[in-house]
Amino acid sequence: MFVHRREVQIQWGDCDPANIVYYPRYFEIFDDSTSVMFEAAGFPKQDLTRRYGFVGIPMVDTRARFLISSTHGDWIRIESHVEAWRRSSFDVRHNVFKGDALAIEAFETRVLVGRDPGNADKLKSTPIPREIVARFEQG
Amino acid sequence: MFVHRREVQIQWGDCDPANIVYYPRYFEIFDDSTSVMFEAAGFPKQDLTRRYGFVGIPMVDTRARFLISSTHGDWIRIESHVEAWRRSSFDVRHNVFKGDALAIEAFETRVLVGRDPGNADKLKSTPIPREIVARFEQG
Amino acid sequence: MFVHRREVQIQWGDCDPANIVYYPRYFEIFDDSTSVMFEAAGFPKQDLTRRYGFVGIPMVDTRARFLISSTHGDWIRIESHVEAWRRSSFDVRHNVFKGDALAIEAFETRVLVGRDPGNADKLKSTPIPREIVARFEQG
Amino acid sequence: MFVHRREVQIQWGDCDPANIVYYPRYFEIFDDSTSVMFEAAGFPKQDLTRRYGFVGIPMVDTRARFLISSTHGDWIRIESHVEAWRRSSFDVRHNVFKGDALAIEAFETRVLVGRDPGNADKLKSTPIPREIVARFEQG
Repeated sequence: MFVHRREVQIQWGDCDPANIVYYPRYFEIFDDSTSVMFEAAGFPKQDLTRRYGFVGIPMVDTRARFLISSTHGDWIRIESHVEAWRRSSFDVRHNVFKGDALAIEAFETRVLVGRDPGNADKLKSTPIPREIVARFEQG
Repeated sequence: MFVHRREVQIQWGDCDPANIVYYPRYFEIFDDSTSVMFEAAGFPKQDLTRRYGFVGIPMVDTRARFLISSTHGDWIRIESHVEAWRRSSFDVRHNVFKGDALAIEAFETRVLVGRDPGNADKLKSTPIPREIVARFEQG
Repeated sequence: MFVHRREVQIQWGDCDPANIVYYPRYFEIFDDSTSVMFEAAGFPKQDLTRRYGFVGIPMVDTRARFLISSTHGDWIRIESHVEAWRRSSFDVRHNVFKGDALAIEAFETRVLVGRDPGNADKLKSTPIPREIVARFEQG
Repeated sequence: MFVHRREVQIQWGDCDPANIVYYPRYFEIFDDSTSVMFEAAGFPKQDLTRRYGFVGIPMVDTRARFLISSTHGDWIRIESHVEAWRRSSFDVRHNVFKGDALAIEAFETRVLVGRDPGNADKLKSTPIPREIVARFEQG
């Protein structure tokens, strides 16, 4: 299984008047983590759109549990992997660590979409190419 | 039960290259909705910090299910209410509608925090004042 | 001359650990103000893209001078107008007031762009339709 | 003179429906660059607040000229330095490069602030410590 790890430093503008991360910023960090994981696996989002013709991998369902807060200057480590693949959707898990402690658990279900051939303004779920699944399962 | 409704227009900068809302923006909208609901109930966040001495109401656990996408120019209606009160934490539900259709369901568990008297850098959960609970339950 | 005014309430998540607005948020507010001004003048961005085939009105040059700070709960009033029109670019001015006091002055030069016919990935400046200029000049 | 360089990859969520960076994101990147430059010089923002008692270094005046656009997946290089120091304010310049080409020029005037001793809710400009200026001038 392909697991992607990256370190991110919390910045001043990520934090709110309580001096901790404003939680919507974490969802930006998680979205970036999923993108960077795909790029590290050989499938940058630019290729998903240009080579495969997909429009994006929008979020269907996401949840995050916040266990330990962080502030600007702190470094967090995000470990991301795909937990399950289906025809056109898949589940991602992000575990965020501060040192050895689990700080946040996040779950995502995303769907791969293209343009609807009958209506260019509409998005339509699209089967996930076999080589993408194979690459992530092989690790 | 106190229910708060507001209308929000999706803006250009809320949207991503797929021309739909970049989902972390929805969490900003939900956070604003919770703040505005408290203000409408008579408890603006400025009072929570200045009058009551709280530091904030950070997120403990949040989930959102995205059923219908939106793009810039669209108007959405957000209906928010507190589903459950506990000693120092509470659950919020946001239902987002496009016209009559449910577009997003979101859930939040938040905790009311103050400064830890023993360590000003630490946050500590704090009992929710009775008048706040009473005001929300009365509707 | 068409002048657009709107009131915006600063939210918790707009503010940083110094408890004042994190200044990049103001540029989001200004971008929204320009969009809303165009919509109020009869040219919503959706029409600019769908009806006219433009891709956007990206920023070429922007400046903001911050005179008075704001925090969450504060209401600001943004007065926006187009100061000058050129073939495919134009200048916007936003004045932000807190009560009667000028809190921020902001300037924008934007350019109207479409897809380059020779290279769909490239953006190309496009003449501004006469009816748009006429509508704004008429007030 | 101390010059700080860092590479940043543009992410999906930084981009708008025109598939280029939504310009307010650049101001977030510049704010981070100033923070990271101070940290690299030995003055992380946490020290500015905890050790020196400052509240922040808010923006007084900022301008950016956008010469070349970028999209998700692109890497940009940001070169930052302090151009001038005054009693309690200073000027920062950020040059953004794509490869060898100058993509953005940005200018900032910031002021160092502390709490007003007479009114804890008010911010007050504060002299910049000599060792900070010395460190940046020495390079």
